[in-house]
Amino acid sequence: MHAGDLLIKASDDSGSIACVGLDPRPELIPKKIVATAVVEHHDPRHQVAFAFETYLKSILDAVVGHCAAVKIQAACYEAYGSLGWQVLERVAMHAHDLDIPVIIDAKRSDIGSTAVHYRQGLLTSAPSFGAAPLPGLNADWLTANPYLGGDSIEPLLGDPVEGKGIFVLVRTSNQGAEDFQDQLVDDVSLSTVVARKVHEWGQQRRGVSGFSDLGAVIGATWPAQAKELRALLPHTLILVPGFGAQGADASQAVAACTNRGDGIIVNSSRAILGAWRSQADTVDPIEAARNALDTMNQQLNGALP
Amino acid sequence: MHAGDLLIKASDDSGSIACVGLDPRPELIPKKIVATAVVEHHDPRHQVAFAFETYLKSILDAVVGHCAAVKIQAACYEAYGSLGWQVLERVAMHAHDLDIPVIIDAKRSDIGSTAVHYRQGLLTSAPSFGAAPLPGLNADWLTANPYLGGDSIEPLLGDPVEGKGIFVLVRTSNQGAEDFQDQLVDDVSLSTVVARKVHEWGQQRRGVSGFSDLGAVIGATWPAQAKELRALLPHTLILVPGFGAQGADASQAVAACTNRGDGIIVNSSRAILGAWRSQADTVDPIEAARNALDTMNQQLNGALP
Repeated sequence: MHAGDLLIKASDDSGSIACVGLDPRPELIPKKIVATAVVEHHDPRHQVAFAFETYLKSILDAVVGHCAAVKIQAACYEAYGSLGWQVLERVAMHAHDLDIPVIIDAKRSDIGSTAVHYRQGLLTSAPSFGAAPLPGLNADWLTANPYLGGDSIEPLLGDPVEGKGIFVLVRTSNQGAEDFQDQLVDDVSLSTVVARKVHEWGQQRRGVSGFSDLGAVIGATWPAQAKELRALLPHTLILVPGFGAQGADASQAVAACTNRGDGIIVNSSRAILGAWRSQADTVDPIEAARNALDTMNQQLNGALP
Repeated sequence: MHAGDLLIKASDDSGSIACVGLDPRPELIPKKIVATAVVEHHDPRHQVAFAFETYLKSILDAVVGHCAAVKIQAACYEAYGSLGWQVLERVAMHAHDLDIPVIIDAKRSDIGSTAVHYRQGLLTSAPSFGAAPLPGLNADWLTANPYLGGDSIEPLLGDPVEGKGIFVLVRTSNQGAEDFQDQLVDDVSLSTVVARKVHEWGQQRRGVSGFSDLGAVIGATWPAQAKELRALLPHTLILVPGFGAQGADASQAVAACTNRGDGIIVNSSRAILGAWRSQADTVDPIEAARNALDTMNQQLNGALP
């Protein structure tokens, strides 16, 4: 299925525009799982790997059907090297098994002849010495950094029938985004210049939903800019980070939606995985995560026009 | 040792400003190694992993003492998932054992709270459930993409005494660099704006060599821009990709050096790893690679002022 249609269908089917961020960090793992990991594994690396995998698979089992997608933050796994990558692969596989669309948030970028290897590993498959290619992570969407320009994004995009999508960073949610993204180029911000390119590159790549498989990342912490950028991106799915732990509320988070109230996926990571931390020890961490997602869904759906 | 001093010392000791790019691709692996891999391993993934590891370790053994550093292109390994990452770890370990400075070319970028995990995995160590952190790849330098701004670069930089350095992309070697990096901001290019920030962020981070541990990537394919950018970056080590296979010659590649003829590291990947491909079958691929490096060293040293 076209990658844009896949996300719209998952959002329609679940009645949710929420994306559950799978950003594991040791302090976000419930105490019971940590205790089991430490008993069952001697090697501290395997303790972390076991705990991340166990918790995230349980989270996936609890959120399936109640979110539009999950977003795997590559950095949190890459912190633990090849063993962390193995966990990442298993978590992505479990999401696939549950038919939850997978966004791999790796913000990759490189010159074309190199970027193709990121596509191979994260979205499709890589060449072997024989005829059969070696399947990679097989995520549905990948985030990418635009600084290197169009010929660095193009190799990440295949034929739309392959069903893979790329979210290009346009305006990020951090304060430092001002340093370069807000610099004025011919009286418009650099992020506006990037948004125009994303629109141009994507407009011939639309699915039956009307949305392209070239999306944009626009942080929830800048709702005024989000509205301006949406106007330039009528056919673009927008991935919105920054909800919850990063400070944006529901009305800010939905600022980038279309006039029809669609076209956005809003991510929350720590507020879901770490929901148990602000609650009594008697509360089940998986239930706490699911409750946090339900609340998020209510808030977002209530804020949509 | 301060990361800038480390590269200058390695360059002085070897009499070389060359960096050997370790970008493995199936077609760059010599036929004999492929044949052995296919005989010794049934699983096509392990064939690729074995062949990459075997060839790259031999290359490292051949180039030690004759280059300033090696550059590991993360994408080529990430194409093969966790098994590719295991090869990456073993290749980096072998370079460490040989005391060759390691640049991990991963062009990472994320918001601060996430970027710290890239630092953990690629340069330092990550937290466990116990008191002892888990050592990561322990590379000496990492390449990073500046699009997210200063607060995305800062968490990658630790205390200079930790001996780690960051090369920030300023002006890349690909044609598409024109799309955003050459856009004019107040009559100067965006890459100039980035260069000024790199200078500002790095000027209090200089080692005894006079160079900072915040470097810049400036492609060899744009020598005129390289000279202009060097003028803004008097204390900055510049990593120069684009020599050889990407089309730049030695005089173009050294355009970014200081008036003293130092401060640059010039990378070549395919022209060294794949040198055997343009030669007779009787030529040893490792010798061909070493000869290509020797020729590169002569050309670069001859072109320096």
